[in-house]
Order: sequence, then C-alpha cells, then structure tokens
Amino acid sequence: MTDPVTIALDAMGGDHGASVVVPAALRVLARRPDIRLLLVGDEDIVEHALAGRGAAFGDRLAVQHASQCVEMDEPPSRALRFKKDSSMRVAINMVKEGRAQACVSAGNTGALMATARYVLKTLPGIDRPAICTSLPTMKGHTWMLDLGANVDSSPEHLFQFGVMGSVLATAVDGNPSPGVGLLNIGEEEIKGNDTVREAASLMSAGSMNYIGFVEGDDVYAGVADVVVCDGFVGNISLKTGEGVARMIAYFIKREFSRNLLTRLAGLCALPVLKAFRRRIDPRRYNGASLLGLRGTVIKSHGGADELAYANAIEVAAVVVRQSVPERIRSQLETMLAERQAV
Amino acid sequence: MTDPVTIALDAMGGDHGASVVVPAALRVLARRPDIRLLLVGDEDIVEHALAGRGAAFGDRLAVQHASQCVEMDEPPSRALRFKKDSSMRVAINMVKEGRAQACVSAGNTGALMATARYVLKTLPGIDRPAICTSLPTMKGHTWMLDLGANVDSSPEHLFQFGVMGSVLATAVDGNPSPGVGLLNIGEEEIKGNDTVREAASLMSAGSMNYIGFVEGDDVYAGVADVVVCDGFVGNISLKTGEGVARMIAYFIKREFSRNLLTRLAGLCALPVLKAFRRRIDPRRYNGASLLGLRGTVIKSHGGADELAYANAIEVAAVVVRQSVPERIRSQLETMLAERQAV
Repeated sequence: MTDPVTIALDAMGGDHGASVVVPAALRVLARRPDIRLLLVGDEDIVEHALAGRGAAFGDRLAVQHASQCVEMDEPPSRALRFKKDSSMRVAINMVKEGRAQACVSAGNTGALMATARYVLKTLPGIDRPAICTSLPTMKGHTWMLDLGANVDSSPEHLFQFGVMGSVLATAVDGNPSPGVGLLNIGEEEIKGNDTVREAASLMSAGSMNYIGFVEGDDVYAGVADVVVCDGFVGNISLKTGEGVARMIAYFIKREFSRNLLTRLAGLCALPVLKAFRRRIDPRRYNGASLLGLRGTVIKSHGGADELAYANAIEVAAVVVRQSVPERIRSQLETMLAERQAV
Repeated sequence: MTDPVTIALDAMGGDHGASVVVPAALRVLARRPDIRLLLVGDEDIVEHALAGRGAAFGDRLAVQHASQCVEMDEPPSRALRFKKDSSMRVAINMVKEGRAQACVSAGNTGALMATARYVLKTLPGIDRPAICTSLPTMKGHTWMLDLGANVDSSPEHLFQFGVMGSVLATAVDGNPSPGVGLLNIGEEEIKGNDTVREAASLMSAGSMNYIGFVEGDDVYAGVADVVVCDGFVGNISLKTGEGVARMIAYFIKREFSRNLLTRLAGLCALPVLKAFRRRIDPRRYNGASLLGLRGTVIKSHGGADELAYANAIEVAAVVVRQSVPERIRSQLETMLAERQAV
C-alpha cells in the first residue's frame, strides 16, 4: 500500500469550527485508509467534539493544540501579526515543517492566503498565488482561477494562472492537454482590455493548449477545461453564478408551494428535482486550491457542512498524491524556457 | 391624449432583421395607440415583410430607406467609416434630427455604441455612455450598468454611472431614492481594488443614495436598486448569470426526460415550471438603455424574438416619456454642484 497522506485541518476555522471539521474528519477516515489527519485547534474543544461522536485519537487521527483563532472578518494583516498561535497558522506551519503534506481551512480567505504566502512562500517563477476551484458545466466540470486572491493581475500573472490551472486539470482529471480559455467580454481578437489582449499573446505563444477568449456564459457551457481571469472578475463571476442558482431555486420552490395543486405537482417532481440538485450540489465542488505555493493549502467554503468539508479534505489528498506544486514548478520552467528559446 | 412618441427601428439589425422587427412593430402598434414607428432599412424587404403579415404603412407606421446594413461582427470603426447609409446609422440620425425621439436596434453592440456616440454626442458632464438593463431578482428587479460599453472605468466614470442608473430607476420605477450599490469582491471597506474604493468615496459624499459595496450574489438577491460596475466586470457578470440559468434549465430538462416515470413527473410539473420560466423570462427584460447620450437609444438582444423586441420598443417609449436624458443632465449638474460646495 502507498504511504498515507497526512493532512492538517484548521479545526477552529469557518462558520461552524470543530462541530463540522471533526465529524468530516471521521467520515473521511472511515472510507480512506490512506489518509491521516491532524486536528489543529483548542485541544479541549477538539476532544469534546470527538467524545461527542464516541470517537478517540488513534494512529490516523491526532490533535495539535493552538491557542488562538482567526476571526472570519479579521483583516489579514492583523491575523498575520497577532495570531501567531492560531489554528490556521499552526496548520500551515505543519506543512512548512513537513509534519503534514497539506492543510485545509474553512477560515477567512484573505487571512489564509496571506498566512500561507508568508509561511510557505511562492514557487520559483510564480509572482502571486491564485485560488482555483472546479465548477459544474453542461459537459462535466471546469477549473477556474483566480477567484479572489488578487484584485488586479498583469498579463504575466494571467499566464502563470494558465500554467497552474493546466497542471491542476491534468493532475486531477488526467487530461493530458487541458484547453485553457481567457475570460473576456468578446470572442473576437479586437475586444477586451489591454491586459487580457497581452495575456492572450503570451498564452498562445508556447505549448499551453490555449483555446482563445471565452465569455461569461461559456464558463458553464463547458467550452474550456480551464478558465483564467483576474481575481476581481473571477470572484464576481463565481458569486454571480451562485446568486442566479439561489434565485432560481427560490422561484422554483415558490411556484411549487403556490396552492394545493402545485404542491401535488411538487410531490410528483420531487425525486427528479432532487436528482437535479445533486448534480449541481455546491458541496460536491467544495475545496479550492491555493495554487503557486511551496505546499498544498485547500480552502473550504466558510459555511461548509460535514459532507462539503469532507470533500475539501479529499481534494487535498488528490493534490498531494499528484504532486501538484512540484508539477507547477517544472511546467513553468519548461514554458519559460520555451519563451526564451523563441 | 398625449402626443405620440415616435421611435425609429433599425429594421435590418440583429440575427433575424425585418422578420422579427416588423411583426414586433405591428404587435406594439396594436396595443399602444400612443406610439408611432419608423421602420428604417431596405424598403423592399420591409414592404415585403409587412405585406406578408397583411399589413401596410399608415399614420403610425412609415418606412425610411437605408441602403446598407451593419454586420453583427463588423468592427465599430469600419461601421462608422463605411456604413454611413446603414439602417443603424440612419435610425440614429433620425433621433439627432428630431424626426424620432428614440431608436431601437438589435444590431452589433459595439457599432451601435460607437455610432450613437459619434452622431448624438454625450451629455454635458458625461465622459462615457454606459449600457444599462434591468435584471430579475428575488425581490423584483434591479438596474445594472455598465454592461460592456467600456472596458475600464475611472472612479469618476463609476460615479457618473451611479447617477445615470439612479435616474433610470427613478424614471421607470417611480422609486424616488433608489439605493445604489457598487459591485466589489467584499463588503468590508478594506477590500476591492483602488478604483472601486475611490468610486465609493465619490458616491458616498453627495446626495446619491449610496448603499455600499455589493457582491456578485447580492445582485440577484435584490440588495440594491442599481448596481454599478465597469463594463468588463458587468458584461462577464451578466453573461455568467445567463450561463448558469441555461445550465440549470438544461439539467432540469435532462432529469425529467430520463425515463417514463420522470417524464410523467415532468407532465405533472409542467404548468408550474412554465410559470417559473415566465417569471425569469429574459424576453421580459429585453431592451438595454445606452445612457449618457443626447438622445434615447435602446439595444435589443441580437437574437430577440417578436415578443422580446416588442418589449425593447416599449422600454424606448418609457425612457422618452420620462425624459431620461434631460433628467440625467440636471441630476448630474446638481450632484457636481454639491461636490464643489463641500
């Protein structure tokens, strides 16, 4: 059997802290003998949560005490300066020290990014890390980045995002040559702003499988395997999509609860609507990678439940098993060498 | 009775040209005695389309010949230079000459914006026009701008968009003090890029009802009456939303057509699903205003059908009746005077 992967979990992070992280950890351990987990946080709280589930520490589950906790709305600079013994910081330290191969946190995104970057540093050739997740599409799923780590990106940054996204898509999906699209407001070469146009010329020059500009509606049509954009645009695009899905769910529910007849129709349709919901269940897509770091850090949604958080832990295991950081490093080296050879 | 509003229609524009514009015109004339329409385009084609419907010109329906047509993928600069007798250009000329009070086109957005700006000019104090439309939300609808007229905007531009959007919301909805939100990646003051932060300080200083930052998912939750953003972000956000809605419709349809049982469930649920679709039917939201010009120009979706195009014509009538351009001019004057008084 392969060596187990050790993953440090920020047990205090997120809206629900240990009450979600601990049961999610137990769920993963029950089905994945190849994973070891370290629960990082207040020892008493973690033990209490474990005892409440009739579980205990063991070979594959340990605790690492941390006395502080980063608040969900705490400015990243404050967290960096004053929370040196936070569960988030200690979990990242364990990756740095080689005691874990990855960490997962549902805490404050800004603080997680700033701390991970400060502690782990970026890979050679990477200026800025980016947040990348998979999203459902009509054809399967797509990888999108950056989703908010950066508020403005140069053409070179967008190029690096393209490399990182490609590597992730290859590593996780086994896709040998993922098609990379650049998010823009038109498909013709003449459209878009200067940054996007320059990024397009960088991305089309090398061996990246650059497929051209994609528009907002192409993301969910599944036109590209990887969609690259700056973090401002990516975050707004991601959240707009969530907002539309929520509005549609709200209206469907309201129409079915209008009167007795529509309620009956709703009962008929329930199994089908549930099957549909499973398909685009955001919990199945939980676990965004902070790419470009010298180590694996996975961000879970702050409001994640047990199932969603468990998914984020499994994403971490895949990213480690597939040596994503090392592959990003070597892929980027290859592509920059190509550029200099021209 | 009030004087009729005269609206020039670019009868050649859009994916379907006269075969949609002509029946849409007849539909509007049948129910709106206060509207006169001018069909601008190839006289033979227009007459043929009219005859095909058993209709003829009359008091409230006339034709204005134009020998050219702007292609859907034609670069704006080319259209401006070589298509001086296009149906689009002639329709805009009629607004300039006072022979129509508004024009509607389903043609190429870039060419429409460039031509309208060149022929009509911007209002005093407005640097750049913006594209604004209403979108469905959980609470009703919201107005969003810019949706793609500009690829990068300064804080001052975003402020002007806020003024224009407020005026439109007041004029159309009768909302005396519409709440204006600025699209950003976080609700806290510390987040976002410099442009958005500076725009926030301009918008919160005067008498605009500025409600703060809104995130992507807030747009469809109906948090703000007006959502301001630059055209790059707005266009991607709008299209992402369309993409998600299309993906959901596709999956719902697929789940219901899985087998005989799900098909039966679908039959039960059909009236309810249809009621739901009517509620977010994009055709009911067709007709985006090009704001900030010395005249009223309405952009219809290129693929609009008869019902959608008729809606765009009625939007034009409301914007004219409510004197939107004049009100933008005076509102902006008031707000700039406030700023200087500080």
